[in-house]
Amino acid sequence: MKIADIKAFLGNYFDPVELVGADDTEITGPARIEEAGAGQVTFVANEKYYHHIARTGASLLVVGLKAPLGDAPAGTSILKVADPYTAFVFILQNFSGKRRITDSGIAASASVPSSVRLGQNVSVGEHAVIGEYCIIGDDTVIGPNTVLMDNVTIGTGCTLFPLVTCYDGTIIGDRVTIHSGTVIGADGFGFAPQKDGSYIKIPQMGIVQIGDDVEIGANTTIDRATMGATVIEKRAKIDNLVQIAHNCRIGADTVIASQAGISGSVKIGRQCIIGGQAGFAGHLEIADRISVAAKSGISKSFMEPGQAIRGVPAQLMRDQLRQEAQVRGLGEMKKRLEELEARVHELQQDAGDN
Amino acid sequence: MKIADIKAFLGNYFDPVELVGADDTEITGPARIEEAGAGQVTFVANEKYYHHIARTGASLLVVGLKAPLGDAPAGTSILKVADPYTAFVFILQNFSGKRRITDSGIAASASVPSSVRLGQNVSVGEHAVIGEYCIIGDDTVIGPNTVLMDNVTIGTGCTLFPLVTCYDGTIIGDRVTIHSGTVIGADGFGFAPQKDGSYIKIPQMGIVQIGDDVEIGANTTIDRATMGATVIEKRAKIDNLVQIAHNCRIGADTVIASQAGISGSVKIGRQCIIGGQAGFAGHLEIADRISVAAKSGISKSFMEPGQAIRGVPAQLMRDQLRQEAQVRGLGEMKKRLEELEARVHELQQDAGDN
Amino acid sequence: MKIADIKAFLGNYFDPVELVGADDTEITGPARIEEAGAGQVTFVANEKYYHHIARTGASLLVVGLKAPLGDAPAGTSILKVADPYTAFVFILQNFSGKRRITDSGIAASASVPSSVRLGQNVSVGEHAVIGEYCIIGDDTVIGPNTVLMDNVTIGTGCTLFPLVTCYDGTIIGDRVTIHSGTVIGADGFGFAPQKDGSYIKIPQMGIVQIGDDVEIGANTTIDRATMGATVIEKRAKIDNLVQIAHNCRIGADTVIASQAGISGSVKIGRQCIIGGQAGFAGHLEIADRISVAAKSGISKSFMEPGQAIRGVPAQLMRDQLRQEAQVRGLGEMKKRLEELEARVHELQQDAGDN
Repeated sequence: MKIADIKAFLGNYFDPVELVGADDTEITGPARIEEAGAGQVTFVANEKYYHHIARTGASLLVVGLKAPLGDAPAGTSILKVADPYTAFVFILQNFSGKRRITDSGIAASASVPSSVRLGQNVSVGEHAVIGEYCIIGDDTVIGPNTVLMDNVTIGTGCTLFPLVTCYDGTIIGDRVTIHSGTVIGADGFGFAPQKDGSYIKIPQMGIVQIGDDVEIGANTTIDRATMGATVIEKRAKIDNLVQIAHNCRIGADTVIASQAGISGSVKIGRQCIIGGQAGFAGHLEIADRISVAAKSGISKSFMEPGQAIRGVPAQLMRDQLRQEAQVRGLGEMKKRLEELEARVHELQQDAGDN
Repeated sequence: MKIADIKAFLGNYFDPVELVGADDTEITGPARIEEAGAGQVTFVANEKYYHHIARTGASLLVVGLKAPLGDAPAGTSILKVADPYTAFVFILQNFSGKRRITDSGIAASASVPSSVRLGQNVSVGEHAVIGEYCIIGDDTVIGPNTVLMDNVTIGTGCTLFPLVTCYDGTIIGDRVTIHSGTVIGADGFGFAPQKDGSYIKIPQMGIVQIGDDVEIGANTTIDRATMGATVIEKRAKIDNLVQIAHNCRIGADTVIASQAGISGSVKIGRQCIIGGQAGFAGHLEIADRISVAAKSGISKSFMEPGQAIRGVPAQLMRDQLRQEAQVRGLGEMKKRLEELEARVHELQQDAGDN
Repeated sequence: MKIADIKAFLGNYFDPVELVGADDTEITGPARIEEAGAGQVTFVANEKYYHHIARTGASLLVVGLKAPLGDAPAGTSILKVADPYTAFVFILQNFSGKRRITDSGIAASASVPSSVRLGQNVSVGEHAVIGEYCIIGDDTVIGPNTVLMDNVTIGTGCTLFPLVTCYDGTIIGDRVTIHSGTVIGADGFGFAPQKDGSYIKIPQMGIVQIGDDVEIGANTTIDRATMGATVIEKRAKIDNLVQIAHNCRIGADTVIASQAGISGSVKIGRQCIIGGQAGFAGHLEIADRISVAAKSGISKSFMEPGQAIRGVPAQLMRDQLRQEAQVRGLGEMKKRLEELEARVHELQQDAGDN
């Protein structure tokens, strides 16, 4: 694909797209700016990385409209757009071939009972096991060794990688991606304590419901509701090794980083950003557009949209940062206290002398 | 099932069971109080939720003996029992059908060598792989694509969901449930450091032993012992994504919440409650009935039964709460220190004036 | 194997190997010192465990050159070497039989396309699925139900336990061990935020590359790079449930304990020790031989080799310990402040009286 083609293609998304340099070089693929060489396209969005511009060996560099280009190598063509990061994502999408997860159609070794309803162009991988009465939409791919238990419903254009498990009754929207090792719909962790110190299991009769365009990473667990549904709203993005307990609701466009843990019945709003290893106590609510710092421990609800919270227990970012500064200042404070004690001691002695 | 039947059924567990209202309505299933409608049964146990009573559309409401019922809708029948939460669990159990994990019997695609000893009524799912010399007890169900390595022994009435792995030598009691993606008996993380900075692997020759009536969530890992056994005692309940390292012993009726991590050779007593994302350093001991707050980091043993501990490093709950309050009070303390400095400065100037 | 044989065998590694007692007793296996009985070999390395020597029932005890042996039972033979811990590891290796993961050869139920290139003596387990164009080296064992996607390259002498997933393009060196449930090469968690609050997926076009002699625990996730490779250098040891995000580089001989999480593009040096549940923010660098305490939250780079760091946010161990001591001393500090306030109050009253 020539530089001129990339310029034309980005013109579908950005106006203007300014080219400096030759437009007929053949571009064979993308690379990071530190590594890009002849025939490759790279980008710089963050000014922290501007210093790489002078040294790049890339044939094409995508930058913002105001990037300083005085040091750019003569042989490097440059495309300027308003959002070079997103432009580069489009270029990546353009170069990334569709990954083969399994061959088209139903593998001979897959187990697909006759009660299953398959859409057009469904692929089911080797040794995958589909439960009774499952419904799988058009163009959906089920990876090898993945297991759907009974009554699972999956929309169109979904990708379930190998070794995913969906328990019975799970409902998945369209264009959902689920990575390997993830378990959707296992029993919520519900046990009623008895007087003798033992527990009886609370049957987990609900389901998990996943909206359109959700992506879920590897080895994540999303438990079924006790009653009703654990809900992941559309376009939410969930990383690896995340725990989402029974009866949670995760809002649309919310992002949850790796190893975060959401206890039972927590409601997280839309467009929130949950940092890695953050943990939520049960039955809390978090408003829209809240940002939770990594490793935070959230022990109460935060109902005002757009807040940033942090710490264990979590508080507003500014309060937490002030508190952290105060803790760091404890040595200084102690010194001032000791000095003051010495001065007061002196004053008392002086007073005694009087 | 009619309300009269539910009343009779609860009579097996509770005395008294008082009914207010009609007893002939047909109840088709359970629901949460916020969502319950005609034909459904719900409950209120915690007084925080009493305000829902006035608005419920449920046909049957299960409450405690002292719940305020003045606002209950006229069309809602009410059952009063001493422990409405547990009563509702029994109702849930009554309504929950047995989940089909695989068809009865041994799936044709499962791999079951002739050295395996199967009890009566064992089910083994599609593409499950059973190792040599395994023993599987009566009425146990092995899910599709689950793998038992050699010499695994499983008791009666167990349920292993799809995609579970049990390494060689694992011993599992009766009525144990293991959810998908969990790995029992992988090698403990043991490497002997050498002078050149490299490590040599310490062979992990022990096993994992799991008691009766244990339930283990999804994507959890319980490592085999270096020598001897990692032991999960009877009736322990372990959530998703929990790490239990080599040579640990988890006491009977102990509950471990999601993403907790127990380092090697830790001994946890009976009836303990371990919060989510808590972490234990190695070789510690925790007495019976200890409660560990979520996100705690336990770096020493706590040997007095019944204590509550919290924090990083964990200390007794009351000490930790006091310390957290002191940290929150640091701004106030600094103000008082500054005020005092000003007053002492004044006193010194006055003294100088004298 | 007789004690004389064990003495001779250890002589390959240690000089001197001193024997006290009989050398013709038959040793049938190893055991922990608390549990060892007749016919068993055990060891003591740490002086904390010296008190066990007097009570051991072992037939053979391996100790350091300076261990106090006055109380050793008369019937127990003793072998003295410079490093009894490592000596015992060699003894364990000697007694540990090779674990059968699957039968030799390619299981009839495995899926191995004709484009796959297999070395000598490769074993592929039941229902394992190998992608197109994979290359598997001599003596490598692929466990049952494990899935390799397309173009995976694995070296010689590797062990992949059951239910491992390797995404397309993964490159694995020689003698690598990967435990069950681990997912190598899933998509990095990369999404470009858009003005409307939604995200577009950044294609993850890179791979994961794993060096020789690496061991990876169960249910761990190592994501593929966006471009280039996520790299695990040779001899690194990674525990269960660890998250390693896209574009990370983990140095040779580095050890990462369970549930640690490494965000994207982090570079960890060689011979580092990363504690359990530690978390790293993205794009950081950690020098060689750095030790990170469990539960730490690392938010900046540490570039001086050999440092110990701890805390959230992590700082040098000595600074963090001092800060923790100061926080524990807050009650005392408050008392001193109050006392000082009382004394100043008195002084002011005295001054007023004058």
